[in-house]
Amino acid sequence: METVSIRTSTNQYDVVVGNGLIEQISNFLPKDYSNILVISDETVYEQYGERIKNGLGNRKIAHSIVPAGEASKNINNYYKLLTNALNQELDRKALIIALGGGMIGDLAGFVASTYMRGIDFIQVPTTILAHDSSVGGKVAINHEKGKNMIGSFYPPTAVIYDINTLRTLPQREIRSGYAEIMKHGLISSHSFFEECLNTDLTNTLSDQTLKDQLVKGIKVKADIVQRDEKESNIRKFLNFGHTLGHAIEAEAGYGNMTHGEAVAIGMLFALQLSETIYHKPMPFDSLYEWMKRNKYPVHVKGFEMSRLIKRMKMDKKAENANIQMVLLQDIGKPSVYTIDDNVLLTQLKKFAEKVG
Amino acid sequence: METVSIRTSTNQYDVVVGNGLIEQISNFLPKDYSNILVISDETVYEQYGERIKNGLGNRKIAHSIVPAGEASKNINNYYKLLTNALNQELDRKALIIALGGGMIGDLAGFVASTYMRGIDFIQVPTTILAHDSSVGGKVAINHEKGKNMIGSFYPPTAVIYDINTLRTLPQREIRSGYAEIMKHGLISSHSFFEECLNTDLTNTLSDQTLKDQLVKGIKVKADIVQRDEKESNIRKFLNFGHTLGHAIEAEAGYGNMTHGEAVAIGMLFALQLSETIYHKPMPFDSLYEWMKRNKYPVHVKGFEMSRLIKRMKMDKKAENANIQMVLLQDIGKPSVYTIDDNVLLTQLKKFAEKVG
Repeated sequence: METVSIRTSTNQYDVVVGNGLIEQISNFLPKDYSNILVISDETVYEQYGERIKNGLGNRKIAHSIVPAGEASKNINNYYKLLTNALNQELDRKALIIALGGGMIGDLAGFVASTYMRGIDFIQVPTTILAHDSSVGGKVAINHEKGKNMIGSFYPPTAVIYDINTLRTLPQREIRSGYAEIMKHGLISSHSFFEECLNTDLTNTLSDQTLKDQLVKGIKVKADIVQRDEKESNIRKFLNFGHTLGHAIEAEAGYGNMTHGEAVAIGMLFALQLSETIYHKPMPFDSLYEWMKRNKYPVHVKGFEMSRLIKRMKMDKKAENANIQMVLLQDIGKPSVYTIDDNVLLTQLKKFAEKVG
Repeated sequence: METVSIRTSTNQYDVVVGNGLIEQISNFLPKDYSNILVISDETVYEQYGERIKNGLGNRKIAHSIVPAGEASKNINNYYKLLTNALNQELDRKALIIALGGGMIGDLAGFVASTYMRGIDFIQVPTTILAHDSSVGGKVAINHEKGKNMIGSFYPPTAVIYDINTLRTLPQREIRSGYAEIMKHGLISSHSFFEECLNTDLTNTLSDQTLKDQLVKGIKVKADIVQRDEKESNIRKFLNFGHTLGHAIEAEAGYGNMTHGEAVAIGMLFALQLSETIYHKPMPFDSLYEWMKRNKYPVHVKGFEMSRLIKRMKMDKKAENANIQMVLLQDIGKPSVYTIDDNVLLTQLKKFAEKVG
């Protein structure tokens, strides 16, 4: 078991990573909550619902379940969950537990951040991807006009990460989550990046490897969000691979390509661009080979480049006409670069020629 | 013109009080915003919409209008306003201006607090009541199961209080708002309380008197919220008169009695209770006479006492079975008191006998 402590502008919380934590969750609650609402999705609750209830022991516990999938992160489920919380008589000293992946963490976290102006919530992530989303205090729901358009900065009270839940993840989920670990490698250090490159996702990862790399990834993220919680400057580095990634994800249609698969393509493109802009050799080929070896989809020929650029402009990080992208001056040295539309189009075409 | 500076856990903002500020609002914007959304209600926008647009000068300005009245503070308008903000292409550096009374401040503030995880908003209050609600960073919408159940702590970027807007307020609105000034008097000092008692609301208040008393009220509130932004302890003092007040307001049916009128009755009852509990003479008769002189409704005989108690228990400040009320150990010395249901019932009956 390992603990990473994260200090924010308003409080401090622990991310605990280990095996079998759900069954002993009572030991990790920072307070003696009397009334608890577990928010989860159908798939996850079926697997872990009883276990977490047993782990919580003799408290007043209720649960609210939404359908699995990103589409559940909407205003209707948000309001329904608030209504359930009121029906369960949750008061200001109650607790919400988000049991699931990033979608559940975002949705339940936004409910917690606005229920009676904010009550405690604990993240219990059940995917690799959620090592990223559960840390850093960003919570949100989607608007039909854009992802995560409605939300808050609201740090959790704790993150309890039981890596036993990762054993049953489907291969696509592993790929999706591992792309964010790779991102944390690329923006932090040569050694962490090399370690990621040497990881073979087609074989089962050992608990030790998985725990080590998750903790490393969490520390990279923690270090950044502690220095820039509200994304005024360096937190933007965490968007490495995401500007093109979000555009690809949306163009493919949510669900057709996973978040991490789209981000991986975005990172590969960012490496090409970094090399062009900063005239510094980048490990484009190594990442490309690693992605193919681990069965990431790499082709972009199905996408219309002008539509991708339009999507990138709609991304809320584009604060004015020009698109901002995170590039690497070197491995571990990210920087924000404002790119001209024509340069971007030329580079995207070149990228499409390379990867097909 | 007078300025009160308020320091919060996350930032600092100015409350500027003066005449004709709407026309010169550009001078009070802390930044050069390029895209502004003015949120207002039909009645207020008709009076001040053009003026504020002229005051803002050559910027990209849009407006979203909701019907006047507390009923507009709901989830549907919340989502509509977010949609309008997206349609107007507000980005993270845009500004929302809340032009109106407490309802507009709460609603527009909650939109600002959650739009793209929070953008700047400026309160431009147009009622006396809003001297209270515009300061302190509480924003919210109502749930059908309770008032202000969905919201955030989100301080404004500035409060620009043009007291010219108060000249055309109807008598009921003046009474409603002045009750909160009286509250600030009662919980802060003998001298401020005496000054309030000497104020005659049936005649037009001079600009000077109004400005002085508003600034005094704002300073009382500012002093408290600076020391306890998230209502962990002393911020509860601001609920003086509100536990019974909220219950009466809800039982009467929203709109049938104004917020301040209901709070005034709540304060009068709290004085009776304070005298009983702390064995200290309280100015019950002086407040009672002042209320009657200024045409506040004082009767409670129309209400069923057990229903009022039930409402008081539903109030989100009641964190467990027993009701907590703010009482006065002396004028200017508030304290939180947990009261037994039977004592409360007896006292309410005694109160009803006195005031009818």
